[in-house]
Amino acid sequence: MRVLIIGGGGFIGQKIAKALAEKGTLNGKQITHLELADITAPPTVVAPFGVSHHAVDISDKAKCDALFQCQPDVVFHLAAIVSGQAEAEFDTGMRVNLAGTLNVFEAARALGTKPVVVFSSSCAVYGGEIPDQIEDWTTLNPQTSYGAQKAIGELLCTDYSRKGFIDGRAPRLPTITIRPGKPNAAASSFMSSIFREPLQGQTAVCPVQPDYAVWYLSPRKVVENLIKCAEIPAEKFGENRAFALPGRVATIGEMVEAMRKVAGDEPVNRIKWEPDPVILSIVMGWRPHINPQKALALGLTTDDSFEDNVRYFLEDDIQVPAT
Amino acid sequence: MRVLIIGGGGFIGQKIAKALAEKGTLNGKQITHLELADITAPPTVVAPFGVSHHAVDISDKAKCDALFQCQPDVVFHLAAIVSGQAEAEFDTGMRVNLAGTLNVFEAARALGTKPVVVFSSSCAVYGGEIPDQIEDWTTLNPQTSYGAQKAIGELLCTDYSRKGFIDGRAPRLPTITIRPGKPNAAASSFMSSIFREPLQGQTAVCPVQPDYAVWYLSPRKVVENLIKCAEIPAEKFGENRAFALPGRVATIGEMVEAMRKVAGDEPVNRIKWEPDPVILSIVMGWRPHINPQKALALGLTTDDSFEDNVRYFLEDDIQVPAT
Repeated sequence: MRVLIIGGGGFIGQKIAKALAEKGTLNGKQITHLELADITAPPTVVAPFGVSHHAVDISDKAKCDALFQCQPDVVFHLAAIVSGQAEAEFDTGMRVNLAGTLNVFEAARALGTKPVVVFSSSCAVYGGEIPDQIEDWTTLNPQTSYGAQKAIGELLCTDYSRKGFIDGRAPRLPTITIRPGKPNAAASSFMSSIFREPLQGQTAVCPVQPDYAVWYLSPRKVVENLIKCAEIPAEKFGENRAFALPGRVATIGEMVEAMRKVAGDEPVNRIKWEPDPVILSIVMGWRPHINPQKALALGLTTDDSFEDNVRYFLEDDIQVPAT
Repeated sequence: MRVLIIGGGGFIGQKIAKALAEKGTLNGKQITHLELADITAPPTVVAPFGVSHHAVDISDKAKCDALFQCQPDVVFHLAAIVSGQAEAEFDTGMRVNLAGTLNVFEAARALGTKPVVVFSSSCAVYGGEIPDQIEDWTTLNPQTSYGAQKAIGELLCTDYSRKGFIDGRAPRLPTITIRPGKPNAAASSFMSSIFREPLQGQTAVCPVQPDYAVWYLSPRKVVENLIKCAEIPAEKFGENRAFALPGRVATIGEMVEAMRKVAGDEPVNRIKWEPDPVILSIVMGWRPHINPQKALALGLTTDDSFEDNVRYFLEDDIQVPAT
């Protein structure tokens, strides 16, 4: 069992790699080799099996094809230009998120072995002209280019699976919070940084009002769910390989109060509230009220409360401030 | 006002060209030139303005860009590899329907004038895991590669419009019947040929049972609606440029009885009923129960009865049998 993680240098890719190293198996089979690929060579991971590192731009078809010479049985395709950057740099987003994803599916197809491909889609596919409560059969009307590119990836994932080229699974990730590391160009970046930075002794800016509602999931749960997505038998996915992952809805204000419960007043006082029209123009188009019936039926799960998310961050990811 | 019709050699493209020649204007502006493009140079159309003809493969980006040197104000993009062929030749469908459509949108964007682009999508985008009654907010879960490629074109059309690159409109065409001409590789080809051939004195094979239900529209109405789609103000389309065109639902048996009412028993007796598993595997995935509220609100309309469709064929398109 060879596993390839594209986007293996990102925080979810690294966490999946560590989880697989600990687990040792995937879908009941011994993992013999792990390939970590990203735009720059990903950090290594200590594992009981061989780990290789690849610096690959998936939008380069020849290099993407070459990457697949490792003949993976399971691929996690997590690489993407994130929402804020894909909105600011339309052509970069199209090149990586659309052409790059197509290259990944084509390279997987060319293996001829119908590998499992877990493609991380996003709840940014929802928006626009839809009823407020989102069901599994609600149309995708993304209001960002990132969301449109993810929605296209989903359609390709389902069609390549229907044709028997790959065995795809396209879970739509909620906003993942609390992410470790540094802020990034995702419009949702603040949904982690307003907790992470204060918990690490720094200030952070919240660009939305406290009543802004978020559909969220913890890093721990998303890793657990993505690994499960690779293990669920193909026939369970039915005619659509794309579906919303379970998550929880809470307002930013409720999430801040949950941090207060776990970590006291001090981190909460480090949040500065400064509405940002550019961020707002993107995130106000997202939808928090999602009913993930299909994912729940597949056995995927969510967090119990945002207090858990704060605790997970303190247990798994907190870094001592550099100062 | 310069108009470009891509797929201008097809029967809908030709009918739009003739309608524009008769009308002389589009959106209240005088048409000064019409450009007809197709994979082979389209037949000419008699018109009170200049008409040019282009043989262009839109999947060739450089040639597609060159076509747009005509600087169209309005583009009808009707060109596609049809459903049956796109299912049999996956890569051809991807090349023309996905890459070709992307080339068209990119060439239109490169003009910098935000041209109106009417992209003909298809009700083949519907299928799979959706409730039986299809609303404007029902998700797209196409069960053919043609449908997947059209759904991707819709997402691009909406996103390119949202970004201000083009002013796109993506109506989903019902099955168009009674089409003139000859059978083609569309899985829906029989939905015209079982009427057209018998009305022209020939036999035809019906590969489905009489109780198979179809969501249909006449050639006359689709041409009228597509031209209206180019004339409706951009702001009326809201956040999703894609929507189902109005149509009617009827079973094949009801449609045959409508032909009997208009043209008597003789054509009906020329239909041979021979179920075809390949055709069935495609068309059984299509959905006939569509509620096109958005299109109706936009002022788009449907036929009054299938008897009308038979009469339209007799008035507009019947050809004396060659024998």
